[in-house]
Amino acid sequence: MSSVKNIIIGVMGGGDALIEDRETAYRLGKLIAVQGWILLNGGRACGIMEASAKGAMENGGVTVGILPDADSEQVSEYISIPILTGMGNARNCINILTSHYIVAFPGGAGTLSEIALALKNKRPLILLNSDSEGLFDKYAKKDLLFSAHTADQAIEIINNLIRKRQS
Amino acid sequence: MSSVKNIIIGVMGGGDALIEDRETAYRLGKLIAVQGWILLNGGRACGIMEASAKGAMENGGVTVGILPDADSEQVSEYISIPILTGMGNARNCINILTSHYIVAFPGGAGTLSEIALALKNKRPLILLNSDSEGLFDKYAKKDLLFSAHTADQAIEIINNLIRKRQS
Amino acid sequence: MSSVKNIIIGVMGGGDALIEDRETAYRLGKLIAVQGWILLNGGRACGIMEASAKGAMENGGVTVGILPDADSEQVSEYISIPILTGMGNARNCINILTSHYIVAFPGGAGTLSEIALALKNKRPLILLNSDSEGLFDKYAKKDLLFSAHTADQAIEIINNLIRKRQS
Amino acid sequence: MSSVKNIIIGVMGGGDALIEDRETAYRLGKLIAVQGWILLNGGRACGIMEASAKGAMENGGVTVGILPDADSEQVSEYISIPILTGMGNARNCINILTSHYIVAFPGGAGTLSEIALALKNKRPLILLNSDSEGLFDKYAKKDLLFSAHTADQAIEIINNLIRKRQS
Repeated sequence: MSSVKNIIIGVMGGGDALIEDRETAYRLGKLIAVQGWILLNGGRACGIMEASAKGAMENGGVTVGILPDADSEQVSEYISIPILTGMGNARNCINILTSHYIVAFPGGAGTLSEIALALKNKRPLILLNSDSEGLFDKYAKKDLLFSAHTADQAIEIINNLIRKRQS
Repeated sequence: MSSVKNIIIGVMGGGDALIEDRETAYRLGKLIAVQGWILLNGGRACGIMEASAKGAMENGGVTVGILPDADSEQVSEYISIPILTGMGNARNCINILTSHYIVAFPGGAGTLSEIALALKNKRPLILLNSDSEGLFDKYAKKDLLFSAHTADQAIEIINNLIRKRQS
Repeated sequence: MSSVKNIIIGVMGGGDALIEDRETAYRLGKLIAVQGWILLNGGRACGIMEASAKGAMENGGVTVGILPDADSEQVSEYISIPILTGMGNARNCINILTSHYIVAFPGGAGTLSEIALALKNKRPLILLNSDSEGLFDKYAKKDLLFSAHTADQAIEIINNLIRKRQS
Repeated sequence: MSSVKNIIIGVMGGGDALIEDRETAYRLGKLIAVQGWILLNGGRACGIMEASAKGAMENGGVTVGILPDADSEQVSEYISIPILTGMGNARNCINILTSHYIVAFPGGAGTLSEIALALKNKRPLILLNSDSEGLFDKYAKKDLLFSAHTADQAIEIINNLIRKRQS
């Protein structure tokens, strides 16, 4: 792996999540692994975090979890590299800064803070199955905010963005 | 000052702010000082931060600024106690955790992240002159999200909340 | 209070501390208050933190506590402004960056990390009653590391440093 | 990779480092990779960080860099997974919490703060070629502080510790 080639995809979303969203998260994790990208999330054993990490790891991917905790009690078994921050929600900033592209599932206020930080730090952000479409338009810079309804669409958007950067 | 009595009011809002919002922020700062409360904000010399700190300090109040920076170059002159974090947006978490009540002016994505963190950490939150009313309802726990159209209304809401806690 | 005039003195030292050191910490807190300076420490209700904050508050001083915790359960009653970081030891960086001058009592590994960060960030550092004299010489830049055996000596060193900066 | 099996070795040491220490760091990185462990360091393109990451990556290892920066300008090319914290020295806490075992080379005050945090957080710590032997004894809990004079010795100490935990 080289730092030039490694693309890190942040996957954000609630610890409580609907079964449909968890299934989509699993598929997104799988597709991220198949692309050869690294999946990054909050690292805990629940919701979108667990489902996306499982999808990636079961398909040969590398998964990085940025934990709010100072110990490893709540780390998902599908995280290959657990980063223990001991910083609570302050770790949300690390999630965003470290990710090259971010996919946000429906979630609670924690996910909302990560969406906000993505917009603030100008990371390309894809809302997946969001019920908040349109809501963040006024906060977004041009060509940084997208919507998708399936995991496959999200991957396609990211691939288009990568191609644009390279051209 | 005793830690039991000191009430800390977090004032959030954009570094770029409309003149009307800055005037309201000045008045809010003044009223916070008059109540004997401590004003907390992001500490920089611009927008809602500067205006609210000025209003408080010129009326005898104590102002605490939680800076994203590791040095004091961008500290507002109206901050009595500048806390240098060197942590960028991660300091937004400190703003929220430290404040007993939070007033949010219109702002950009940074302010949005603070609103999200207030909802996440269950701090009573008052949106002042917000164009986003209704938007955060689904993220809010009962009796923690309020709207105001003037600084005086925001102070009244806080005083009501303080009375309820004491009774 | 104005940000230009407010001098913040960081007082570091163990949560477990000898009675002699706690007495010296109380006197140091008192002298800091008498000078009109602000005392900053880790904010908890034990050891050097509690003793120094008590000395300052009982003599009319303002005390700022930078807590590792996300809630106020362990805040000393002698802290006028408790800053809740929820960041564990990462808050040690804030202690150091925010303080203009630092006095370190004997302590454990936490205090050692704050001494190291003071040296790293070039904050003038006074070791008070330290059994580690000489130990940090190789890490220190010129004129930034001092030793004192009493609270009064520490204050004198700080006053000399302030005079030098002003001249 | 599974989170149960992945062992993370933190390698700390100066950005300025002697050629001998950089050579030892390269060999340590190589041996970490050969063992199948993950190397973690501060991620920048200098000193012990660069040398140890190079040794690991050129021998097939995975390298995680916990950067103080919010952008990737100073990331070493030998880091496979750069974690951007934007938190300055507060990231030193993450280095320590995330590492299962820590090897510290000679360094400046930054390295000293990481040694202190390792002792504070009870991470097994091996001082490699240190001129500070004996210095940290009073801060260390039983069986958590070791000395080595070669990279091979450091690896042997870690392997002994892993065997003890498993038995």
